[in-house]
Amino acid sequence: MNRRQSSDEVRLSVAEATKLGEHTLQCIGFPREEARVICAHLVDAACCGYSFAGLPRILVIAKDPSTRGPCQPIRVVRETPVSVLVDGGNHIGYYTVYQAALMAIKKAKQSGIALVGLYNSAPYSGRNAYYLEPVARENLVGMLFSSALPTVAPEGGARPMLGTNPLAVALPTGNEPMILDMSTAAINRGDLVLRSRLNEQLPEGVAIDENGLPTRDPHMAVKGSILPFGGPHKHKGFGLSLTIQALGLMAGASLSRGLVQDWAQLFVVFDPGLLVPEAQFKRDIDELIALIKATPRRPGGDEIRIPSERAFRERERARKEGILVDRKVFDALNTIGAGRV
Amino acid sequence: MNRRQSSDEVRLSVAEATKLGEHTLQCIGFPREEARVICAHLVDAACCGYSFAGLPRILVIAKDPSTRGPCQPIRVVRETPVSVLVDGGNHIGYYTVYQAALMAIKKAKQSGIALVGLYNSAPYSGRNAYYLEPVARENLVGMLFSSALPTVAPEGGARPMLGTNPLAVALPTGNEPMILDMSTAAINRGDLVLRSRLNEQLPEGVAIDENGLPTRDPHMAVKGSILPFGGPHKHKGFGLSLTIQALGLMAGASLSRGLVQDWAQLFVVFDPGLLVPEAQFKRDIDELIALIKATPRRPGGDEIRIPSERAFRERERARKEGILVDRKVFDALNTIGAGRV
Repeated sequence: MNRRQSSDEVRLSVAEATKLGEHTLQCIGFPREEARVICAHLVDAACCGYSFAGLPRILVIAKDPSTRGPCQPIRVVRETPVSVLVDGGNHIGYYTVYQAALMAIKKAKQSGIALVGLYNSAPYSGRNAYYLEPVARENLVGMLFSSALPTVAPEGGARPMLGTNPLAVALPTGNEPMILDMSTAAINRGDLVLRSRLNEQLPEGVAIDENGLPTRDPHMAVKGSILPFGGPHKHKGFGLSLTIQALGLMAGASLSRGLVQDWAQLFVVFDPGLLVPEAQFKRDIDELIALIKATPRRPGGDEIRIPSERAFRERERARKEGILVDRKVFDALNTIGAGRV
Repeated sequence: MNRRQSSDEVRLSVAEATKLGEHTLQCIGFPREEARVICAHLVDAACCGYSFAGLPRILVIAKDPSTRGPCQPIRVVRETPVSVLVDGGNHIGYYTVYQAALMAIKKAKQSGIALVGLYNSAPYSGRNAYYLEPVARENLVGMLFSSALPTVAPEGGARPMLGTNPLAVALPTGNEPMILDMSTAAINRGDLVLRSRLNEQLPEGVAIDENGLPTRDPHMAVKGSILPFGGPHKHKGFGLSLTIQALGLMAGASLSRGLVQDWAQLFVVFDPGLLVPEAQFKRDIDELIALIKATPRRPGGDEIRIPSERAFRERERARKEGILVDRKVFDALNTIGAGRV
């Protein structure tokens, strides 16, 4: 993704992007601290190469009033020495999931292990890797299971019944954390909607139409369902997705609107030092990663990359060189910022 | 799998199969209690429809002296209120993983949550769903991550560097537990070896030869590598597999032979009641499962089955009607039993 700047793009330093993003979010109505937390996530996503999940997301948020409906303070509903259940108070996911991650870190540092459930957040929450990175930087292992609203059909079914239900796991290493962050769907909903706007065909085997027939037409797919990931092993993608939807119920998914197919986040965070000394674990995982990366390649094969490696490498460059923002997005953000202040 | 008995098969009741299995295992050299635990697993696998993982496995064990090498007692190496690290003492996996599961249940009942690592087991350990079923029957949620010896190539690589690294998650419901048990490899090693014996072609996209080229020839694949599961989403299968290999390091994988690519098991077990009341969680998960099963089917689609549903249904029948054992296997077991007693 070593992209050159085109005339349709504006290059912003991280500081400039942050200032623009925070200001715009405050103009839309987010309190200063909330705007800061959301914007830090968006700028990080842009740095990591997920430009669609960066500043353009502010325009999506601006157009969607459900992101800033009536709020109550984030509230601890239930707590034990090893667990916290959190009511997000209908604050935006970017803010609530971040707070839940901080609670999970604190609890795991006290007790060695923590189970944290979060429900009643407003859309959106962005990349799960972002929430687990601070977990791994504290030398903890983090798992995050997120259930979502139905967009994915179960194996054999013809209607959306499951969320894209991502799974993320972060591990500390001697260097950068290793963070797996994967959707259990064959394609993301956002990607599907984008392709329907651009009239772009879908890959084979990622969606069905409303009659349950395979389709590569994004317009038909938007009215139909996404399929679980896994190609010929879709039953595994379906099994993982259903499991994550069920784990969401443990995190209180049904408590906000009485629906068993709703949004929730479950964190499992623990200290590997409970079992093996930290230094040994890091030495071992570094050796494993080095071995994997040194695997002889397949003919024509590219570098063997471990989860999160590319994103962190891009981020390092972006922090020096800045990020590219579509000029239309840049102008739209400035219009919001100018018009409302 | 509603199979009729052929003249090459013997029908045994669960009690008969258990008696035969336990006796044969004791004749091979397993102590009575260990034989009982191993055999209960094998008979359960046969009942659940995994006939290859049933009594025939005793012949594999008999031929492999590494399954009963020098042993030390299973030992708790490290313990906290929320964790146990267990040295399996080189006892067979069927026995050690079962003991670790019992420790995880006990610990999670005391503290609400438990992290249990197990290393230094001898091959083999069978189905991970088996170890998590008692966890879910105690109304606990269980996760089991198993790292294994290298047979799978990383995405882009041409050599086996990762295990088939299965992932299992069990959840209590108002009825039977829901248990996901999936390998992160495109094909199991045992299945591959069986196909090479039978000269049976492999499906597309599950293996590469020793030069890293795709192959459907099982003989070439045995010398080459299995691929991660996931078809066009193999990077997700690879990411999961590598993550599980790394979690194995937390469970002490490197402590038995100093290798970072070795066998180990990590359990995460917790009480959903830490977050939501048990009755509510069960009501919610039952409603979710009912909704999923009632999804309108795709044209020509079969019943929508949730993880473990088929296995439990088969087991119910097998417990009444007995299991079918290949006559050659039956005879071989009896020969071992007769010759050695």
